[in-house]
Amino acid sequence: MNENQTKKLIDVALGRTPGDLAIVNARLLNVYTGEILDNQSVCTCGERIACVGPDVGSAIGDGTTVIDAGGATLIPGFIDGHAHVASSFTAGEFLKYAARGGTTTIVTETLEPYAVAGIRGVLDFLASLKDQPIKFFATAPAMVSTSRAAMGIDPADLDTLLARQEIVGLGESYWQAVLQNPDVFLPIFAQTTAHRKLLEGHSAGARGNKLQAYAACGVSSCHEPIKAEEVLDRLRLGIYVMIREGSIRRDLAEIARIKDMVVDTRRLILTTDGISPADLMEMGYMEYLVQKAIDCGFDPVTAVQMATLNVAEHFGLDDRIGGIAPGKTADMVLIPAPQIIQAMVVVSSGRIIARDGTLEMAPRKHVFAAESLNTIRIPKKYEPSDFDLPFHGDGDTATVRVIEMVTDLVTREMRLELGVSGGKVQSDAANDLVKIAAIDRANLPGSCFTGLIKGFGLQSGAMACSAAWDTACVVVVGADETDMALCVNRIREMQGGAVVCNAGRVAAELAMPVFGLISELPLEELVARLKAIRQAAADLGVSFPDPLLTLIALTGAAIPFLRICEEGLVNFKDGRTVDLFVA
Amino acid sequence: MNENQTKKLIDVALGRTPGDLAIVNARLLNVYTGEILDNQSVCTCGERIACVGPDVGSAIGDGTTVIDAGGATLIPGFIDGHAHVASSFTAGEFLKYAARGGTTTIVTETLEPYAVAGIRGVLDFLASLKDQPIKFFATAPAMVSTSRAAMGIDPADLDTLLARQEIVGLGESYWQAVLQNPDVFLPIFAQTTAHRKLLEGHSAGARGNKLQAYAACGVSSCHEPIKAEEVLDRLRLGIYVMIREGSIRRDLAEIARIKDMVVDTRRLILTTDGISPADLMEMGYMEYLVQKAIDCGFDPVTAVQMATLNVAEHFGLDDRIGGIAPGKTADMVLIPAPQIIQAMVVVSSGRIIARDGTLEMAPRKHVFAAESLNTIRIPKKYEPSDFDLPFHGDGDTATVRVIEMVTDLVTREMRLELGVSGGKVQSDAANDLVKIAAIDRANLPGSCFTGLIKGFGLQSGAMACSAAWDTACVVVVGADETDMALCVNRIREMQGGAVVCNAGRVAAELAMPVFGLISELPLEELVARLKAIRQAAADLGVSFPDPLLTLIALTGAAIPFLRICEEGLVNFKDGRTVDLFVA
Repeated sequence: MNENQTKKLIDVALGRTPGDLAIVNARLLNVYTGEILDNQSVCTCGERIACVGPDVGSAIGDGTTVIDAGGATLIPGFIDGHAHVASSFTAGEFLKYAARGGTTTIVTETLEPYAVAGIRGVLDFLASLKDQPIKFFATAPAMVSTSRAAMGIDPADLDTLLARQEIVGLGESYWQAVLQNPDVFLPIFAQTTAHRKLLEGHSAGARGNKLQAYAACGVSSCHEPIKAEEVLDRLRLGIYVMIREGSIRRDLAEIARIKDMVVDTRRLILTTDGISPADLMEMGYMEYLVQKAIDCGFDPVTAVQMATLNVAEHFGLDDRIGGIAPGKTADMVLIPAPQIIQAMVVVSSGRIIARDGTLEMAPRKHVFAAESLNTIRIPKKYEPSDFDLPFHGDGDTATVRVIEMVTDLVTREMRLELGVSGGKVQSDAANDLVKIAAIDRANLPGSCFTGLIKGFGLQSGAMACSAAWDTACVVVVGADETDMALCVNRIREMQGGAVVCNAGRVAAELAMPVFGLISELPLEELVARLKAIRQAAADLGVSFPDPLLTLIALTGAAIPFLRICEEGLVNFKDGRTVDLFVA
Repeated sequence: MNENQTKKLIDVALGRTPGDLAIVNARLLNVYTGEILDNQSVCTCGERIACVGPDVGSAIGDGTTVIDAGGATLIPGFIDGHAHVASSFTAGEFLKYAARGGTTTIVTETLEPYAVAGIRGVLDFLASLKDQPIKFFATAPAMVSTSRAAMGIDPADLDTLLARQEIVGLGESYWQAVLQNPDVFLPIFAQTTAHRKLLEGHSAGARGNKLQAYAACGVSSCHEPIKAEEVLDRLRLGIYVMIREGSIRRDLAEIARIKDMVVDTRRLILTTDGISPADLMEMGYMEYLVQKAIDCGFDPVTAVQMATLNVAEHFGLDDRIGGIAPGKTADMVLIPAPQIIQAMVVVSSGRIIARDGTLEMAPRKHVFAAESLNTIRIPKKYEPSDFDLPFHGDGDTATVRVIEMVTDLVTREMRLELGVSGGKVQSDAANDLVKIAAIDRANLPGSCFTGLIKGFGLQSGAMACSAAWDTACVVVVGADETDMALCVNRIREMQGGAVVCNAGRVAAELAMPVFGLISELPLEELVARLKAIRQAAADLGVSFPDPLLTLIALTGAAIPFLRICEEGLVNFKDGRTVDLFVA
């Protein structure tokens, strides 16, 4: 805050000049003391709060907009501390639904644009977050990639990002990858902490001395616990735990037991870890999480702290956001009562951005750079034969590693003895054994690995998407090589997207031209398109709740146990890349 | 932390190599969760903690030093968040008594050396804090000086300091000075926050919209509340409140009521705000405060948090200190039980520095630079006539402003009509009206202002000291001008110190050659000397509990109401310098 802004705040606080916006006659949920105080008022000046207390009358003048809260409750704007904004929707479309419920700050990962478009992609993505109705902060990508060639962010790129104000730390670094590749990740960690910025963690399933070893690396958070006991293990080690309630997983109901297990909840945080367009439209954003926390038995003050002050403190942003106090950014939400999280008025950086669920300030539409819109650099059209599985060994059979679906996200390695015909191993859709391929589109464009997957459900056709997790891949699963090629070629034409094909025709598709990850459609239309893709996949036999999510997570580096990328199959347990054929 | 250190921690945590120091079979007071956990162990590697939990057996090997806690309680090392280490004693002597009780980190102000020796003085002072048994952090001086010419730190000096790792923010900026001189201090604040460092506050007595205005400047702490209600006012504004219990004031007993007034205590901190050599020897340091907090009714977990995690979080140092967890600095104290704060073993940065009240690691004696030892740059010997009060007006009487003592620290302006004789106003020791002078020794050396003080108690002789607060002055009070000159000249000879003279002879003295502020005597001897000075002052009629403290505080910019510096008398209410004579 520069001295002129501060001087204005002083003048308003001292009653020398009138403030801009006053909210009077409110109950104030004070996140610092844990009190709920009646008959409180707040007055702002520009983006900031000038004064808060029982009487701000001297700060109110002719030019002041006054809102009489009529005894409604005023709380700080919500902060999502771990979001994936570079997914599916543009920030502008996302905000149409995310901002109206009281969320005024989002901290997002940036690994997705980095993986496919490098530092320039990240900078363009960050530019898309500027001058929006709410504030964004971001983490630099650690680049825990499934592909070993892409592992670890470039140090020069990391320096570029860490020097930026809105970069609050290093993004999630999956614990296995860190402990398996200390020479890659520990220098990146040291570089980050030398900038006095945070290391965001990801310790899914870690326990005992492995969790200790990971904590010793200095990671400061984890959003992966799925049981209250896992939360407790991490809190005891000084790690901030982000309770995840989003579209990937919903852990709040189970984890809520933690409230009776610890005395101090200051290091508990609520986060979405990303939200799907449909969930966002139907359920809302952080306001849904805070309400659910209350419904799960958290005290309203604690629930609000978990989405405001605790998050701000974690990121070292509490000098600016996370509470209602003089000098802080004027991010406030008026709700009917402490236990009813329903935004009546949302103030973000001193501006009223929403009232009664209606956004009053349109998000800015960002014009992405041409290179952000041309990221599917696969050099040639694909042919069905590109997905052949030639076997160069002796004999009529080959022992192969197969990705077996255990849940919609978890897989394991299965070994099958398959017949070889014409020098090739064949898939067997009748037995739910189909082909899967990962095609690099950025680093070694066109580099492709084809394998086999069991239990995906596809009885015919194929589906593909360019938004594969933790890689720069287009991932395609198919019962038919012609449809696989069609899917990939259509994605190449669209410069990104999701496609379901059957019998040589496109059954459903969604263009995702921004980084090959993001649709520019209006959110409502995007939801409809995604529903159509789900239906088309279901029509082909895929019974997972979200077939597209299942598909793109197959390249994910943080989910057990056998994953795929353009380099081959990747054993989650040791991080090694293995071949289709068992030697 | 660099990657090699981290790798070693990982190896110890995973049981690949043995740790250095293990404390086993302890109760662990977990400051993060607020739990007290039985049967816990900790193992370190170098300066850091590698693992903590019910079993660290795999980290223990042949080379590991093992301490069996036998069920004693392990807590994090204490942190004093607001100390004045550049006062009276060298850091080395200070640590002889400060470190044995469990304090492992101190954040100190640096305004004292800056005022008299500039940036080079501060850097030499900071050097004296390096390589000691415990860690020091510091704040850059804001330079709220009583002298207008010295007001505000030089921006280049501030940049030099803010670039240093151990500088965590800007030191205390008295609220009146900030609001009275926004053009001086707000740019300094902006410069500090641009470095993402803290603004330490000082809001003694501020309330209502003045407190709001001060908070709006972005100050993040205050150590000045003397009532629980003042604590509450500040906590509600998001300000960390440091409850002061030291040699200047003892506010803990009164303020302890706050524990029943708020739900959340995360922003409460215990601090000394400086401690006298005698108190340090007799009462101890932070361990005394934590014990007293418990004795005043704070829960032991809360009391320990107020001296560990809360302080670390305030300063953004909780990635390194403030709790017992993997990756954190190994600062730990073994105490008999959570409610008995008596250090059995003190571990600082992984080394055992004290056992059962005995320091086992000698503090380092710093050799100060020659210029730090020659700071009394008064150009000439003083003569009694230098303290004359010539009156150039008409008439036989003059109306003068007199500093009237209200308490041992608080003063007010008194106006007296005094007789003029030989063109000079005279003091009147018989009526407890004596002379006071402030002589600049650094900025405009020899620049002197002489005034009058009522109620100091001196019946004869004089006393002087070069450690005057918030100025670069030698301050002298005297019933006799010859003794005043003698005091000043003796301080000039010693290059700093405190002197009491009577009847043309030195009655007691203490050399303070380091910056004219610090004695290099062993602490025990220093205490004896200070006692002798107190006695000598008492013999001359000064009945304040600590006459030397009363003397040096007379130049203090933060204490109401009429203060003195080489520029004249300073009206605390508006910060204006006024003359002895009322026009």
